[in-house]
Amino acid sequence: MITGGFDLMKYGIAIFPSKEIQDAANSYRKRYDPKYALIPPHLTLKEAFEVDHQTIKELVIELKRIANETKPFKININKVSSFAPVTNTLYFKIEPIQELTDLFNKMHSGKFPKESEHAFVPHITIAQKLADGEYADVRGSLQMKKVEFEDHIDRFQLLYQLENGSWTVYESFVFGQEHM
Amino acid sequence: MITGGFDLMKYGIAIFPSKEIQDAANSYRKRYDPKYALIPPHLTLKEAFEVDHQTIKELVIELKRIANETKPFKININKVSSFAPVTNTLYFKIEPIQELTDLFNKMHSGKFPKESEHAFVPHITIAQKLADGEYADVRGSLQMKKVEFEDHIDRFQLLYQLENGSWTVYESFVFGQEHM
Repeated sequence: MITGGFDLMKYGIAIFPSKEIQDAANSYRKRYDPKYALIPPHLTLKEAFEVDHQTIKELVIELKRIANETKPFKININKVSSFAPVTNTLYFKIEPIQELTDLFNKMHSGKFPKESEHAFVPHITIAQKLADGEYADVRGSLQMKKVEFEDHIDRFQLLYQLENGSWTVYESFVFGQEHM
Repeated sequence: MITGGFDLMKYGIAIFPSKEIQDAANSYRKRYDPKYALIPPHLTLKEAFEVDHQTIKELVIELKRIANETKPFKININKVSSFAPVTNTLYFKIEPIQELTDLFNKMHSGKFPKESEHAFVPHITIAQKLADGEYADVRGSLQMKKVEFEDHIDRFQLLYQLENGSWTVYESFVFGQEHM
């Protein structure tokens, strides 16, 4: 990480699902996700990246363009899945749809930093960093539960990270609208 | 509070100051503010109000209009003040300026719910709900510190509250731009 005179800040891009889905996710995150207090439940479109003040201005223009050319779409959640054995993470699996892949691809090409540590698996984390024994217990009980949500997505959000690790929204980008 | 078929949600309107100011506020909030984990450091423009889905759509249009007719402005913080003896709250005092009063007034007239429990005192809370003894200690030590910040404000945010008491940003409204 470069710090100092470059005035770098750490940004990320996410979709917040409906209050209903966030409340359901938080009922698990409260106990099983150490990042519970740092950010509301979310679907990550672009993981943390560091850029300076001038670059983020240019990326905001790109994000407005991307939002303008995107139409609202539906997402569906039908089950709890896991990233094990890579990590002991449990999540609401978002059924893959082209609209989400398109958003991800546009935010990892052109003027955007292109690195992504992971293949894009749309998800809302509900448990992470569990010890192996607890993970097995929680996974067992969560996979018994019926999880079924539909949501209407019409925006994404650009956030930045504070020194304590929490995230603040910088700007929201609503689909299919004319901004500046 | 009315609940049930009316699909009410609790909304609020706030300004998030710069990362520098948020980091400084959090260094105190971490120890002295039980709402630390529920929302980033903020300047409240409109306290929590409950409206239904249709009403918030109309208010979003109003908020776009208000943002469009507002020009970016500077705020200054020069000291820590207190709401004692009413409440044991300590805050970064924002020097009063007409631009903030105008925003507050526009969000408490016309189509907006008009009630406000308090006169408008622009502030960023850094400590609250302290016991009397702790309050006196913290107030003593904070009032010794030099607190001086300037910030450039060019947006406000509409948030909604989740069941756990935390707040999620619904939409950001950037000043002096054409939306829709």
